[in-house]
Amino acid sequence: MSVTDELLTNAERYAAGFEKGHLPLPPARGVAVLACMDARLNVYGLLGLTEGDAHVIRNAGGVVTADERRSLAISQRLLGTREIILIHHTDCGMLTFTDDDFRRGIEAEVGIKPDWAAEAFSDLDADVIQSINRITADPFIPHKDSVRGFVYEVETGRLREVKP
Amino acid sequence: MSVTDELLTNAERYAAGFEKGHLPLPPARGVAVLACMDARLNVYGLLGLTEGDAHVIRNAGGVVTADERRSLAISQRLLGTREIILIHHTDCGMLTFTDDDFRRGIEAEVGIKPDWAAEAFSDLDADVIQSINRITADPFIPHKDSVRGFVYEVETGRLREVKP
Repeated sequence: MSVTDELLTNAERYAAGFEKGHLPLPPARGVAVLACMDARLNVYGLLGLTEGDAHVIRNAGGVVTADERRSLAISQRLLGTREIILIHHTDCGMLTFTDDDFRRGIEAEVGIKPDWAAEAFSDLDADVIQSINRITADPFIPHKDSVRGFVYEVETGRLREVKP
Repeated sequence: MSVTDELLTNAERYAAGFEKGHLPLPPARGVAVLACMDARLNVYGLLGLTEGDAHVIRNAGGVVTADERRSLAISQRLLGTREIILIHHTDCGMLTFTDDDFRRGIEAEVGIKPDWAAEAFSDLDADVIQSINRITADPFIPHKDSVRGFVYEVETGRLREVKP
């Protein structure tokens, strides 16, 4: 039995107890969270979110590339969110390599070099600020009054704000 | 008080009860989930995940663009995941507009046309297959034996597999 099959069994249990079939499409709290994909970062648990509350966007590092700007533009323009919460975290995999090494390793194995940046970083707080700046500079995201960045500490469960 | 400030109060409560400071960086279940950012889709709740279990990647639509391929390549190459679960859902915002209209509307307002596709779609099952195909075609994601796609029904809480 694959892990996917095991998780599907969990999904059947979720459906059996489901009572939230009436929720509207726009997020009730008007917020979009952009966080790292890290397995230890439980966005719903950490922020006390429940079904219907917030858009959650996640990727390797919690970085801001074109696709996150796409998701944020759709979130704000079509679905009414107004605040953005960015979350990086301690002990992140993105701190453990460099773009050059990652791309070189893939090229050596596959014979093709990725046509995208891996977005590795060496300074956690600086990359949170980098993410805020990329959003601020984007012409397609209309609402930027509340774009705040945080570092989640996987060791303590605490969320620490990073001020520009 | 902003919504962000309210959620930060929740985060303090999460930290106060935190007992999971010892978890390793690689996901325990060896799986990466790629799902829509929709507020009604509670990935942890649905799949019965807990802290440390799985990478969770999310964006508008749960689509596969360059950034999701980046995240999946990092997930598999550096952090050992082997299975991929794709989740789209009913009543998705991406079903409500077209790329052309979205880009034209932004151009009319901002004076610049986005240099990215909005990735809207009109057929849910077809876009799940599209996402599977984009992963299958990617040269940088090494493990493709278990790439399965699903539609989550926001009305019933059920997860339905889409077979290519």
